[in-house]
Amino acid sequence: MRIALDAMGGDYAPDNEVQGAILAAQSIPSTTELEVVFVGRESDILASLSKVDASKLRYSIFHADDIVGMGDEPSTVVKKKRNSSLYKGIELHANGGAEGFVSAGNTGAVMTTATLVLGRIKGVSRPTIGSFFPTVNTRPALLVDAGANIDCKPRHLYEFAIMGSIYYSQILNVVTPKVGLLNIGEESTKGTEIVLQTYELLQQSALNFIGNVEGRDILFGEADVFVCDGFTGNIILKFAESIIGVLKAKIKQHADKGFLEKIAVGAMAPTLRKVLKEFDYQEYGGVPLLGVNGVAIIGHGKSSPKAIQNMIVRAVDVASKNVNGLIATTLASLVIPTDNN
Amino acid sequence: MRIALDAMGGDYAPDNEVQGAILAAQSIPSTTELEVVFVGRESDILASLSKVDASKLRYSIFHADDIVGMGDEPSTVVKKKRNSSLYKGIELHANGGAEGFVSAGNTGAVMTTATLVLGRIKGVSRPTIGSFFPTVNTRPALLVDAGANIDCKPRHLYEFAIMGSIYYSQILNVVTPKVGLLNIGEESTKGTEIVLQTYELLQQSALNFIGNVEGRDILFGEADVFVCDGFTGNIILKFAESIIGVLKAKIKQHADKGFLEKIAVGAMAPTLRKVLKEFDYQEYGGVPLLGVNGVAIIGHGKSSPKAIQNMIVRAVDVASKNVNGLIATTLASLVIPTDNN
Repeated sequence: MRIALDAMGGDYAPDNEVQGAILAAQSIPSTTELEVVFVGRESDILASLSKVDASKLRYSIFHADDIVGMGDEPSTVVKKKRNSSLYKGIELHANGGAEGFVSAGNTGAVMTTATLVLGRIKGVSRPTIGSFFPTVNTRPALLVDAGANIDCKPRHLYEFAIMGSIYYSQILNVVTPKVGLLNIGEESTKGTEIVLQTYELLQQSALNFIGNVEGRDILFGEADVFVCDGFTGNIILKFAESIIGVLKAKIKQHADKGFLEKIAVGAMAPTLRKVLKEFDYQEYGGVPLLGVNGVAIIGHGKSSPKAIQNMIVRAVDVASKNVNGLIATTLASLVIPTDNN
Repeated sequence: MRIALDAMGGDYAPDNEVQGAILAAQSIPSTTELEVVFVGRESDILASLSKVDASKLRYSIFHADDIVGMGDEPSTVVKKKRNSSLYKGIELHANGGAEGFVSAGNTGAVMTTATLVLGRIKGVSRPTIGSFFPTVNTRPALLVDAGANIDCKPRHLYEFAIMGSIYYSQILNVVTPKVGLLNIGEESTKGTEIVLQTYELLQQSALNFIGNVEGRDILFGEADVFVCDGFTGNIILKFAESIIGVLKAKIKQHADKGFLEKIAVGAMAPTLRKVLKEFDYQEYGGVPLLGVNGVAIIGHGKSSPKAIQNMIVRAVDVASKNVNGLIATTLASLVIPTDNN
């Protein structure tokens, strides 16, 4: 099982990528025979490898000169940055040189490049990015779309629901994940025209559709898969990602008030850390790009070694399951009225 | 200063309404000469009053037989529930019997009824509801629209920005509040067609427009006024409102793990409570209905006496300032290209 890792993607590349790969090798059963293909500048990768003990890691290096930055326009990568680690890694996967691709780089660039190089699964109008949210339950919630498609038609949202449900079912071993349509009220009469039409499609579908869900239902895990357009999804995701930092800042402000407060905050720190850890998005193994002919896991630019580890483990998991085959089969069997396209 | 209070609005009405009014009377300087007009079923209100010491509260009771429920369709109130506390209270305010109206009832019903009975301020296309969010700074952020208008055109969003900025400036005594357009990226090229056009309008405006802001910027208070449509706003608001409950549930789950964990959680409880209190939406004095010819403050159905108190205090504050006059003056001076309507 070879996983192509964009070694230059994250903000702390390639150090975190190398360390994450070593952690992944430790956490995956040896029967999987994981090989990480570091894609990027060989000298940089070797320098990072020289700082750590990589003796337990099976790896190879696939040299790529160029780097896609966070500010690069996604659509330009295919034209102007074919020598980048991002492009070369996806190409390697497309050519069969790896069974999956992982990057903590420019999300839009991975999305656009993967769609063009890997192609879409038959029947998919638009690939989408899902994102996991922690919940009060033992299993997380998957929000889809988390920012890839800002203008969506009912058919697109319907496809997101199908892809999200299949991914959730396969990766979290839940037979019929609960699918909810993110809306401003539970009643079926609520929402924009697009949301109302999507509701109809979902209700007629074979999905385990539980109806409209609201913003408050996400962290309480009232559904497993929350469907929305990428504009709403991206804003909620970034809002959610800010919570830990805000709480830490608030607690620090409190500790700075005096000696006794500092002691109280110090006493609660270990417990609180455990609680907040469950809200740490680093733990959730990156976000999947769904609907492309391949396996692509995208992580935050600030991904820690632990986050990189989880992304590689996730890519191995997805690659060993039949997510894309199920998406193709399900979409092929759909009959959707054309006026809902 | 008479404030009409919908005594039957909240989930714990009229008990919480009566207790909140007493708290408000204690916290407002006696020079204000606050009189709370309880609007609703006289017998119920008297029963609630009999349980408490209302000797410091100047009040009157304005009887109304009917009640608007949380499930009532907002548009039906004006036709079918003219004897409700909600309708009667707004009517009393419209007729000059009170200088403001406060309700913890059906938000949509207050919005619709207030718009019809009080009328819109000249120049306002659509009244809007703003909502305050706590931030890491000393002042909160105002999100507008928080759920009143789900389909918005650039002109509407522009008006929300103006009304929000004036309200923020007047109520929080900030001369030029920072206005941000909620979007999926900071670059001016990001967003839907409607958001892109709104960006142009805001950039040409006299507002202190700081550009696009993202979901993560809300709790960090990167702007004072965050502008978005009511679909996005409502989902973020409800998501945000769920955070305290989710954290409490997580902490409880942790405490249930064993004796030592229970002690650790117990030790941190007082400190954490103070920190979480700053995230308690009850503290923020309800949400203002902006753009109507009057003063209407709307609270959560679950409003505590403390929340009702803050709403009454806020209504007094708004009524004593010239928010609506400034909105009218500013909108009258606008020149907006008609193709952006």
